[in-house]
Amino acid sequence: MMLTLSDILNNVVPVFFYSGLVVFAMSGGLRAIQADMDLFGVLMVGFVTGAGGGTLRDILIGALPVNWVSDPTPLAILFPASLLAYGVHSINWSNRAIFNWIDAIGMAVFCVTGAAMTMDMGLHPVICVMMGVITATFGGLIRDILCNIVPLMLRQEIYATAALLGSTLYVGMDLMEMDPALSALTGMSAALVLRGFAIRYKFN
Amino acid sequence: MMLTLSDILNNVVPVFFYSGLVVFAMSGGLRAIQADMDLFGVLMVGFVTGAGGGTLRDILIGALPVNWVSDPTPLAILFPASLLAYGVHSINWSNRAIFNWIDAIGMAVFCVTGAAMTMDMGLHPVICVMMGVITATFGGLIRDILCNIVPLMLRQEIYATAALLGSTLYVGMDLMEMDPALSALTGMSAALVLRGFAIRYKFN
Amino acid sequence: MMLTLSDILNNVVPVFFYSGLVVFAMSGGLRAIQADMDLFGVLMVGFVTGAGGGTLRDILIGALPVNWVSDPTPLAILFPASLLAYGVHSINWSNRAIFNWIDAIGMAVFCVTGAAMTMDMGLHPVICVMMGVITATFGGLIRDILCNIVPLMLRQEIYATAALLGSTLYVGMDLMEMDPALSALTGMSAALVLRGFAIRYKFN
Repeated sequence: MMLTLSDILNNVVPVFFYSGLVVFAMSGGLRAIQADMDLFGVLMVGFVTGAGGGTLRDILIGALPVNWVSDPTPLAILFPASLLAYGVHSINWSNRAIFNWIDAIGMAVFCVTGAAMTMDMGLHPVICVMMGVITATFGGLIRDILCNIVPLMLRQEIYATAALLGSTLYVGMDLMEMDPALSALTGMSAALVLRGFAIRYKFN
Repeated sequence: MMLTLSDILNNVVPVFFYSGLVVFAMSGGLRAIQADMDLFGVLMVGFVTGAGGGTLRDILIGALPVNWVSDPTPLAILFPASLLAYGVHSINWSNRAIFNWIDAIGMAVFCVTGAAMTMDMGLHPVICVMMGVITATFGGLIRDILCNIVPLMLRQEIYATAALLGSTLYVGMDLMEMDPALSALTGMSAALVLRGFAIRYKFN
Repeated sequence: MMLTLSDILNNVVPVFFYSGLVVFAMSGGLRAIQADMDLFGVLMVGFVTGAGGGTLRDILIGALPVNWVSDPTPLAILFPASLLAYGVHSINWSNRAIFNWIDAIGMAVFCVTGAAMTMDMGLHPVICVMMGVITATFGGLIRDILCNIVPLMLRQEIYATAALLGSTLYVGMDLMEMDPALSALTGMSAALVLRGFAIRYKFN
């Protein structure tokens, strides 16, 4: 018996989604630590960064109660992941570069999962692309506003543009009825590569 | 055969609504250009300025999915209109005065359309007045926060007060069962005139 | 005939809820006056501070239209209470200490009413605790953002932690089927005492 890409997808998408939660919560926790917040602040900013994009998406499309109220499982991931930020922060590498890469992975994952979730609901493809971008960027936007720094997204063109590329590729391939797992991997990879070029170019 | 005011209204209200979208998206695009944002920032701030007020209103009254998710037509207006801001910006007039007038037209139109939409749903008149003010002011509030300037609305009393006057007049005339087109034109004109006096007084 | 605690509760909870509205609206009005806002700004910030937490809670759990749209009674409390801030401001005591105590009472009341409302809807206890914290803190968070000061909640650990203590105690006692009135009073008192210690320690 062989596993097809579609079989794998059913296991892969939740894994991607939870990985996205982990890295975004860590990015939120890191920013909060860098802003000298206390434990509660680290937990709160980690939660908002990980859950914020999906929460706004759920509200806009009317999928209420929002996902983490209907099923609180993400909370069991977001709070511990926020605490991981203390570990990452204590390692004396260039925090800023690490932060940007962690954030980039979260963005790449969420632009596809946000688009995929809304395509499954049969919404207009343009709306699905926007929901992918919103899911990928809104958590980080609130994170930066709460930590009182100019949002990453508004300073760097390649940030939201990378999310736009990823969700557009996924939605386009899905409309052409290509394999969902392949579409998801293509979208995520393209978003991550484009954002990665921007990070390398800025920090080298 | 004669056209009554009510016949005209059915064509006039959408025209007003779309004009409001155009001028608010332009005002958002202008602010983003003045804040040295890139193309993506201009499109995003334009979209948020035009769609933000109606989006918050839809969420508060529970009209979900929000209007531009159910019917993405406004997107086809908001994105091109945001780009018009490059044209307005390049004309070397006093940008600040132009900006204020464009913004004033959007406010005057939306305070009435926001109140009209909620009156049609049978909500309490006081709530309808508030929804008119929210529809008229929230997009501009987010625009100014995203562009990191003190919101227009919080600096100038006559801004939100003008929206309040326009939506109160509309709701009052509607309660007295006056002609909707006349009520709408009265509300918009009053809001625009009051705000216009404030602009003239400040800039002369 | 004797009144039981439960009989009293039916009259007590609305009283608490309306008291919370009053003090939060006053705290919003005070901040707006201290930020040199005009009458409209005072009314708006008072309204947002009093209604903001419950509004976000209603949106997240899908209880739409939000409470003050379905039943505008709170408006009749919030707007007059905002104006009371002029009276408090004019008394030449230490405004900052008064402000903190008024705000603390609102927080203590709302962390319990927010948790109680969601427990009654049968949501997961962890979600109910979070909704208590959100109801208690979000209005003040927007208040401080609108008035352009660093949010109280992000500066002082004991602020949100006190709300967390109050809502956790209420939810825990409710799960153990203890008397609702006793649970509510215990949660409120604990939150207020903990926050009170933080205020005294800072200002003495």
